[in-house]
This record gives sequence, C-alpha cells and structure tokens, in this order.
Amino acid sequence: MTNHQTTTRRMVILAESRFGPLSSKTANGAIAYMADQVVAIIDSTKEGTTAQEILGYGGGIPVVRSLEAGLVFKPDTLLIGIAPAGGRLPRSWRPYVTTALSHGLHVMSGLHTILGDDPEFADLAARNRCSIVDLRKVPESSKIVARGTWRQRKARAVLTIGTDCKIGKMTALLEVYREFQRRGLNSDFVGTGQTGIMICGKGVSVDAVIGDYIAGSVEKEIDASAAEGHDVIFVEGQGALTHQGYSSVTLGLMHGTMPDAMILVHQPTRKADDYGFELPELNRLIRLHEEIIGFFRPTKVVGIGLNSVGLTDAESVSEARRIEDVTGLPTVDAFRFGGARLADALVEYLATVPPPRFTGPLKSPSGMAPE
Amino acid sequence: MTNHQTTTRRMVILAESRFGPLSSKTANGAIAYMADQVVAIIDSTKEGTTAQEILGYGGGIPVVRSLEAGLVFKPDTLLIGIAPAGGRLPRSWRPYVTTALSHGLHVMSGLHTILGDDPEFADLAARNRCSIVDLRKVPESSKIVARGTWRQRKARAVLTIGTDCKIGKMTALLEVYREFQRRGLNSDFVGTGQTGIMICGKGVSVDAVIGDYIAGSVEKEIDASAAEGHDVIFVEGQGALTHQGYSSVTLGLMHGTMPDAMILVHQPTRKADDYGFELPELNRLIRLHEEIIGFFRPTKVVGIGLNSVGLTDAESVSEARRIEDVTGLPTVDAFRFGGARLADALVEYLATVPPPRFTGPLKSPSGMAPE
Repeated sequence: MTNHQTTTRRMVILAESRFGPLSSKTANGAIAYMADQVVAIIDSTKEGTTAQEILGYGGGIPVVRSLEAGLVFKPDTLLIGIAPAGGRLPRSWRPYVTTALSHGLHVMSGLHTILGDDPEFADLAARNRCSIVDLRKVPESSKIVARGTWRQRKARAVLTIGTDCKIGKMTALLEVYREFQRRGLNSDFVGTGQTGIMICGKGVSVDAVIGDYIAGSVEKEIDASAAEGHDVIFVEGQGALTHQGYSSVTLGLMHGTMPDAMILVHQPTRKADDYGFELPELNRLIRLHEEIIGFFRPTKVVGIGLNSVGLTDAESVSEARRIEDVTGLPTVDAFRFGGARLADALVEYLATVPPPRFTGPLKSPSGMAPE
Repeated sequence: MTNHQTTTRRMVILAESRFGPLSSKTANGAIAYMADQVVAIIDSTKEGTTAQEILGYGGGIPVVRSLEAGLVFKPDTLLIGIAPAGGRLPRSWRPYVTTALSHGLHVMSGLHTILGDDPEFADLAARNRCSIVDLRKVPESSKIVARGTWRQRKARAVLTIGTDCKIGKMTALLEVYREFQRRGLNSDFVGTGQTGIMICGKGVSVDAVIGDYIAGSVEKEIDASAAEGHDVIFVEGQGALTHQGYSSVTLGLMHGTMPDAMILVHQPTRKADDYGFELPELNRLIRLHEEIIGFFRPTKVVGIGLNSVGLTDAESVSEARRIEDVTGLPTVDAFRFGGARLADALVEYLATVPPPRFTGPLKSPSGMAPE
C-alpha cells in the first residue's frame, strides 16, 4: 500500500461512545498528527465538547452527535476511529458507512473487516464516485518472503522497538520524523499498523500478514521508499521481543528492516505487561536487540523515547535523567518535549557508520512462498 | 487439529516426477516414519523401483506409474506427497484427487489449497463416504493470542531449533520421541508443519497463521497434549532465529512453547543459508536462544542433532566429536544413529529443573485478537 493519501482530507471521525485518551487510538492518532485534516468527531455521549477538552490536544475540533450533524463541517471522508473487540465491523456501525458513502464521502477504515469487499458498500461507493480505503488490507504483492535487500540499500533505516507492546512506538517515531522534516532532512515514514499507515499514507499492516511474509512485506515498503530517494526511512515498530503473544511480529519487522539504528520506547509507570510480567531490564533488552541484528550487521539503540503517561513534566524529566544514567543513552518523552534530542542522536550516530556495501547478487529463498 | 489420525492407514503417495531424497519431503517423511502404512508411491518416471533404491530407506515399498496401478495394493488413502511451487494444487493434479475419491480413498494433503473447500472434491467425498484431511488448515479456534499457560504447565516441553531452516529439526525430534516411546516414557509429539502433523496425528501448521497467533496456536496444541496427561511434549521447530525471512515463526514457536529444554539441529556440510550468509557460530546461537527464553524462565539447549547429509558415518561421528568439544553438548546424527544420546541428555537435564510453580490467575492479552 503506497501513497493512497495523495490529497489533504477533511475527515469526520467515528468514535461513538468511546472518544477518549485510551479508547479511540486511531481517532487520536489522526487528531495528534493530522489535526488540520479533521473537521469533527462523532460521539453522541460527548456532544458539544472539543478534542482539546477530551484528549488534552487537538484544539477546538468539535465533537458532534451524529454523522449527519458532522456534515455541516463539509467533510470529504469518514474515518472509522475506533475498533470493536475482534476488529470486525459491528452490524450497528453499517449505517455510518452507508450514510457516508451515500453523501459521497470516502470511507477510511483500519478494521479487519475489509469494507471494500462488502458488496453493498462497494456498490454505493461506485455509484457515488467515492473510494473505500482499507488500511489493513494486505496487497497480494506484499505476501512475499524477505529478499535481504538491506545489503544493497543506500538509505538508512531506523526502527522503533519497545519494552512492551502498545507503549508508544509510533508516536515517538513520528516525533523524530517530524523533527527530521523540520530540519529539511530527506526522510520518510513507513507505517506498519493502521494508524501509522493512515497518518503517513504508506506502509503495510503487518498484523494481518502470516509469519513467513512479515519480514518480506516490510522490506518491500522500505525498498519502495528508498526508490523514492529518501536518505532516512523510519519504520514503525510493533509488539515487543519480550511479549509472549506478539514477539513474532517484532522479530519479523527487525529482520525485514535490518535497521541501521533503533529507538527504544519505554513507559516508566507501566509495571507489568499483558501477562503480569515485569517489563525487562533496559540494558539487557537493548543488548538483546543489538545482538539479534548483530548476526548480520552492526546496529545500535541510539536513544530512548519515554511514554510518561501518569507523570508530570518534572517527573518525566527526572525519570529520563535516571534512565540516561542507567543506559548512557539520550532519553526524552518526544511527544511532550519534541523529537530534537533523539534526532540529534540519530544524526550523530548515522554519520559514523558506513552503509552496507554488498555488491554481489542477492541470494534469497525462492521469493514468493506458498500463499 | 487433534488426533485426526485415529486409525492405521494404507497410503498410496503421489510423488509424480519428483520422488527423490530432496524433492518429495512429505512423501519421504511418511516413508521414514510410517513405512508400515505406505503401500505404494506414484512416480511414472521411476516405475518399478522401490523406496529403498531411491531414498536409501523405506524397504521394498514399490513405485508405480499411476494411481490406478497403485489400487492393486488396496490403499485406503491418497497422500499428496509433493508440493508444487507456491503450494497450490495444480490443475493437472486434480484427476488424482477425483480418482482417489471416486474409488473411496480418503485424501490427505498438506497443500495451501484447502481441498475440502473445493465443491467438486467435497461432493465426491460425501458421495463416496471418504474424508479429506487438509493438514495445513488452521481451525478458527487456533487463531488466538498466547495466554502464557506454560506458567501452570506440569508437562515438560522440548523444542527443536536450528542453525538454518529446512535443516532436519522434525527428523531429529522424531528420533528422540521414538526413543522416549521405546523407553516407555509418557511423551507426545506436536507437529507444526504438514509432515509432522501427518506423522503424529496432531499439531498446527504454523506457517499458515498470522504473526499475532503463532505463539497462541502452538500453546493451544501443547495445552491439549498436556491435558492428555503426557509428561514430556516434543514440539517441532520451524525456521531459524537467524533466518531473515522465517525468524518470526521461530520466535513465535519459542514463546508459545516456553521450552524447558531445546535441541539444536545443525548440518555441518551446509555452508550458507538461503541468503548466502554463513551459518551462525554455534555457541553464540545457543546463548541467544537461552537468553530469549531466559527473560521468562530457565531453559537450556541440552544437545545437538546433526544432519550429516554428504558425510560418511565416520565423518559424521568425527564432526559430532568436534562439535562436542566446541559446545560441550552431546552431539549425534539421530536419524542415522538413533535418538538415545539426546534422550539421555534430556532425561538427565529435565530431572534437575523444577517445573514452573505459578499458581496465581493467568493474565494475558484479551484472548482472541482480531481475526
């Protein structure tokens, strides 16, 4: 999936009954990173409030009671901003989609249900000349085994990793990417989940890919980005190497990216993971990531992005200092304080390591593995 | 998938044009481990030979020119013993399936194409009261996130790992399992690929599972086996932690199994992997596997299974001694010389480590993740 987001949108976001800091992740990603493209949020239980009041960011974007009420803001797109348990489209949400399409709005969705495959939706979209963007749909051409193209890559790849899943890897990396953009550095962002793909307009939803193709599917996105001539490619991480359920996705991303450098994301107030396990000791986890890539090439965790939810600014800074002492790495909550320190660390490190210089033919498994 | 293999079969194996040591993996697995259930092999290019002549094992199982010619041996099952590139059923193979079903033979297949979903095949099977066993079909109930049940598991789990993929992990483990059976130890084998599932009658084809469910799908099989009361559960490994394309499957299996012990499989004559990379240094790779599981529990690589293809028996023994010197671990080609040494090492090690004793409630992610 590449560059589907070619134009600036005017989005109304479905977040019915769930708009909030922890319960509407896709909506919140859009509001945080595409605020100028969001015209309204649908949540009848919070009608009359604003994004700023509910999230603490997003300014005056209004919360409205219904899609119909949102039409007054002249949206051109309905974004499904919340996910039901199971990721499938609930029957009760169908009217939002049909109403949007009937009014000529495009529909953007990160659900597992592929809306474009629904005959009623497809028909409505065709009749009203609007499009359905399924962020989670994996193109057949992405179902491929990794080829190891990093060996001939001139662009640098930077991957976020975490002490746990759902810890803020996308956000930390977006802040660094923003900082690179601000400095005029030629960089790109490859999403690997629906929110990252939506925000940056490219990437692949790796959680919908079978194991054998995870590395290959992200490698393909990096190759496409490199072919556009970017110098630094930021790759959104997923899961965690020490998460019992999701670690396989993480390792696939690591081998598909073969990162020149990594940024570790950590939340000091999170005491345990989904399983009740204490989060791993930072230096041990850093060594593990470097060792795994070290079988192939040198790499380094160059900085730590803090998710300081639950901490005051002063506490966040103090916690960052403590972690810097322990790890020797620059540490900052980039969402609160910006991506400059992590960007500095990256720029400095990347200048010291040569890119891979392999010039022979690329050997790899037979390419397309069985579907 | 559990216990579909409830009865002894009489199999005729399709291996047309490809019966050979390296080109008919599923057929060869059946011949090596279910020889008394194989009545004939179909390969018109080798008509009149025997399994022994072609593979070096399998005794006098005859190779015949066609399915019809094989019927004289009164098979009750057609096994698809070869895989086309891509894993899909070629149109030219359909007549084998329809002929088999028309004669009342069951059909067993590890193809990605789910034969039971084909209306013509399903109809023929129903009319002739025979069954279609799709070894690679992943039941919906296996599409789950790992729960971390190892924390309350009394059975011991043993996983094979490798210095590369397709290196003999299944074979080495089957030999150790056989040895445990021979000694009357209460053990079980969980397959994770179509051949292992076919041979042992249980398991899940993890290469058809999306990343988030790999660990969960194998954990579920182990739980089912443990519930049957086995003391030791052998889990077939897949891929390799240092294989760029398939590592995600390997890590998912490791976390889904959380093995008490591991057996590393290595092929001394293999100089490079699919990508042209030298196989990793043994001690470094052993440490990496132990470290990854070490975040959760103690574990140990207790022995090394050699795949000594291309070596004489004397060379194999000499290479095993060299590796024992380097690693300090018992090393043997179990396919040639039997699984006794590795079984000894396992029995000895498992006696020294207590099982996990966690008695609290199992915390885990919300269970069923989005499909």
